[in-house]
Amino acid sequence: MKKRLYSKIPLAQTIVALCEAKGIHHIVISPGSRNAPLTIGFSEHPEMKCYSIVDERCAAFFALGIAQQIQKPVALVCTSGSALLNYYPAISEAFYSDIPLVVLSADRPIERIDIGDGQTIRQKNVFENHILYSANLYSEVVAETKVKDIKIRQKQREAQKHNEREINLALNRAIEKKGPVHINVPFYEPLYDKVDQPTVFPKNIPIEDPQYIISDDLHSKMIKEWNQATRKMVLVGVNSPEKIDQQWIDYFANDPSVLVLTETTSNIHHSSHINCIDQLITSLTKEEFENLQPDILLTIGGMVISKRIKAFLREYQPKSHWHVDEKKAFDTYFCLTEHIRLDVNSFFSDFLPKTNTIQGNYKSTWVAVRDHRRMRHAEFLKQSSFTDLTVFEAIFDNIPEDQMIQLSNSSTVRYAQLFSLHPSFKVFCNRGTSGIDGSTSTAIGAALASGTPTTLITGDLSFFYDSNGLWNAYIPSNFKIILINNGGGGIFRILPGKEESDNFSQFFETIHNLSAEHLCKMYGIEYNKAITLEEVNNGIQQMYIHNDSSQLLEIFTPRKENDSTLIDYFRCFV
Amino acid sequence: MKKRLYSKIPLAQTIVALCEAKGIHHIVISPGSRNAPLTIGFSEHPEMKCYSIVDERCAAFFALGIAQQIQKPVALVCTSGSALLNYYPAISEAFYSDIPLVVLSADRPIERIDIGDGQTIRQKNVFENHILYSANLYSEVVAETKVKDIKIRQKQREAQKHNEREINLALNRAIEKKGPVHINVPFYEPLYDKVDQPTVFPKNIPIEDPQYIISDDLHSKMIKEWNQATRKMVLVGVNSPEKIDQQWIDYFANDPSVLVLTETTSNIHHSSHINCIDQLITSLTKEEFENLQPDILLTIGGMVISKRIKAFLREYQPKSHWHVDEKKAFDTYFCLTEHIRLDVNSFFSDFLPKTNTIQGNYKSTWVAVRDHRRMRHAEFLKQSSFTDLTVFEAIFDNIPEDQMIQLSNSSTVRYAQLFSLHPSFKVFCNRGTSGIDGSTSTAIGAALASGTPTTLITGDLSFFYDSNGLWNAYIPSNFKIILINNGGGGIFRILPGKEESDNFSQFFETIHNLSAEHLCKMYGIEYNKAITLEEVNNGIQQMYIHNDSSQLLEIFTPRKENDSTLIDYFRCFV
Repeated sequence: MKKRLYSKIPLAQTIVALCEAKGIHHIVISPGSRNAPLTIGFSEHPEMKCYSIVDERCAAFFALGIAQQIQKPVALVCTSGSALLNYYPAISEAFYSDIPLVVLSADRPIERIDIGDGQTIRQKNVFENHILYSANLYSEVVAETKVKDIKIRQKQREAQKHNEREINLALNRAIEKKGPVHINVPFYEPLYDKVDQPTVFPKNIPIEDPQYIISDDLHSKMIKEWNQATRKMVLVGVNSPEKIDQQWIDYFANDPSVLVLTETTSNIHHSSHINCIDQLITSLTKEEFENLQPDILLTIGGMVISKRIKAFLREYQPKSHWHVDEKKAFDTYFCLTEHIRLDVNSFFSDFLPKTNTIQGNYKSTWVAVRDHRRMRHAEFLKQSSFTDLTVFEAIFDNIPEDQMIQLSNSSTVRYAQLFSLHPSFKVFCNRGTSGIDGSTSTAIGAALASGTPTTLITGDLSFFYDSNGLWNAYIPSNFKIILINNGGGGIFRILPGKEESDNFSQFFETIHNLSAEHLCKMYGIEYNKAITLEEVNNGIQQMYIHNDSSQLLEIFTPRKENDSTLIDYFRCFV
Repeated sequence: MKKRLYSKIPLAQTIVALCEAKGIHHIVISPGSRNAPLTIGFSEHPEMKCYSIVDERCAAFFALGIAQQIQKPVALVCTSGSALLNYYPAISEAFYSDIPLVVLSADRPIERIDIGDGQTIRQKNVFENHILYSANLYSEVVAETKVKDIKIRQKQREAQKHNEREINLALNRAIEKKGPVHINVPFYEPLYDKVDQPTVFPKNIPIEDPQYIISDDLHSKMIKEWNQATRKMVLVGVNSPEKIDQQWIDYFANDPSVLVLTETTSNIHHSSHINCIDQLITSLTKEEFENLQPDILLTIGGMVISKRIKAFLREYQPKSHWHVDEKKAFDTYFCLTEHIRLDVNSFFSDFLPKTNTIQGNYKSTWVAVRDHRRMRHAEFLKQSSFTDLTVFEAIFDNIPEDQMIQLSNSSTVRYAQLFSLHPSFKVFCNRGTSGIDGSTSTAIGAALASGTPTTLITGDLSFFYDSNGLWNAYIPSNFKIILINNGGGGIFRILPGKEESDNFSQFFETIHNLSAEHLCKMYGIEYNKAITLEEVNNGIQQMYIHNDSSQLLEIFTPRKENDSTLIDYFRCFV
């Protein structure tokens, strides 16, 4: 067995040792020289899974995909200079999606900033607006550990102490608060020296458990309010599969005064749920809206996709809005009354057994409306011609069970919201910032980390935006991509005031004639295309027959008909 | 003629009008909905040249390339959310390269930040570390201009005044200080309404001329020092062609006590210049270094590429280091004595006529060394086998005169430094941050704006990193790309402590088997390849025969031999 080596630089040893101590084992490295001490340290460690990704924008989304699945921090390692800035889109996504990422940016020592050296920028606190913690480390005065000068040794010990504390704080924050942190790591040259024994043994400072509780007063008040309310709406945003115990889902299902609304990314299922919000909240009369208006709105999970539910709840506000989340509560509907800082299951297990089931027709009325609309939906789809809408139906009908589905922004996830997806699907989408910028890279990271057969469903702008996502040596052979290519930003066609002008097609829709065929050849991905519904059905079925190489099915839909079909679709519920 | 329309939103009208007033006419737009008022305003303006680029990272480098050539600000327009963050690599490059860019990011109104709305991040001051000015505008209270409520009208007038002042400040700063500024523009819906007459007429606040002068005392002191010094070194960094008047180049050439050192990106030429710094400053003895050490170091231009000259001047410091630049002076050699805040030509025309020519052998000695080394260089190349080094010789021998040459980082620009390029070439490289991230996009922007026949010379990592750079409808048909593909980050092979291990090839060199052939097919670029010196010579000559479509020549060089040849090359001067 090859003997493990260590970077000679104590700071690099410290970072690797503390990552190990905190259970961080996935390291995404982009090439560079200044980061050599970290690259050496991590890649020599037998328990670290290191990945090499050149484009830092893709590297960061790939790391995000891994962290999305393992729910533990993934580290990113890059060299100094603009490399780091390419991480920013994924960092902001992680910030708003509560996904832990640890950015380890190599840097030059502070006295080399802004004196005209190459690949040198102002890295300190550069992610200020979207980061949970920025640790700015000291470089060792000299890399040698055996220095005779007492003052230098003293300074070195102090630097080491500062660095250990800061690294601990940053890593703990990423784990505890689930989000991105930035550790800026200046290194002196030489950068490539190795030793066969570590020379520092940093202390692992454990995470303090914050122990939030609800006051008894508040608890009693909430139970009283709940038991008096005849209309309680539970709205679930982005939510990991299996996060919420089934017993609480069943509990809500058995209460006629509780209506549960879920989204595609909620990953909970029950026959009593309203699982296509946008199908329900369209073409309602004022009276119907008033009947839907809840007394209590209980929200759980992350971001909500549906614009319709946001607009509805902002206009028809509940008396109380409670949000349950250990970390944060957005006042999305401008009426937040309580932020319950607890894990959802802990809160439910304490609270729900003390509540009573309230009779009434709140749930039954709206489930009946839902069922009627499901019927109208099916009728509309049946007579509908070949457009994005019918293609999405075919996609979800044909994807086999137990897939992880990764959706890109923005029309893809919005179309998906209109269908009742199979409960065995695990569905994810980067809804923190809702960007089109890293869906492919995220999906590949998630597929790899989960080991689950994964299908990415994406639109053309998202797909070509992240084309470098395919420059990735770790794409699982059972990874599938379904690309709906409508020749431009189809979502912009569904806009008020849109007109068929040159300006519109150039600057909003940004029409193009690109196909994914050449990219697939370049990156060794099996390519097929479909231009009719029959080809779509066949193409998807064929995709899952073998898993010996990753595959992409490109579906070309008619650019100009997609939006009118969608407008007609929403009209069919009148 | 089609009648020009305006966004109905006064803030959008204000921005377009002030851009026009300041002479900003190039607008790079990425698709989005929130930025519709700006997209409408700019694209309807008959004198605005609007470009549509989907990937904001490429859009920003494309804008940088345009601004690099026209030396005036170029505006970038994007939607809200992570879109903006994709600009950051190019913004930091602009910041360090003194290139004016105006980022116009659409945003949601401030009360919609951090409440869970889609595509919403903390855009305010997000580029803090690398921006000359951040203007955070107010959204209009309501978009309507005819509001009856006096208080709202009052508030609206104040917002308009604030916005006009901030936009003026930001644009003036970009023009005066030559760098990036960020204007964050929140808009209320509706976003798509148009009017046929503007409703606001913003005031253009002119730029105040700062009028720096040197004190008489300093001026006399400097003249005295100059006239006494027998060894004066003039070192020129990144410098636009034709920026320095020929008379001053001739003046220095005629003074035996002045040695002028230029780089590939200096764009000045004279038979007495040391134009290959790295060829000169290698294998020198201590005594030779001491003979080269100047009394006065006069630096002009931007970033310096050569690491050897930096290391030399840091060790053998001049008594005085004067830097002439209107804006900034980096203390690159830790001995800066004067920052002369003047335009180079103004300073020279005032200063040089008052100086005397000093006799001596400083120039002649080093020009003789240079000539000897040029001979050794030629001998070495003659007997050298096919590697990156010989390929670069062939490239520069075969490119026709009067081309603009755009170089990528980092090995490309370092190889180019070893050759005497034809004086008719205009040479550019993103040396602000020296990133590999946007060379192709920058080159396309520069080619387009200059109208000059342009060749991009790039390495494989840079080229594939910016592959979306080719997703660009404005590539001139006479734009050529020469891609030196050595199968990975060749520059990492020239490292101390490198070893042929899996870790090395995976995480440092990041080897790959990619070719540009498929990308060229995808984007309609004529593709050819070369694997021998003869094919390289022929391939380059063929490239320039016709200009009816842009072309790429991919040269495959032997991965493992490039670095040993380069090491031998530097040894040949011993």
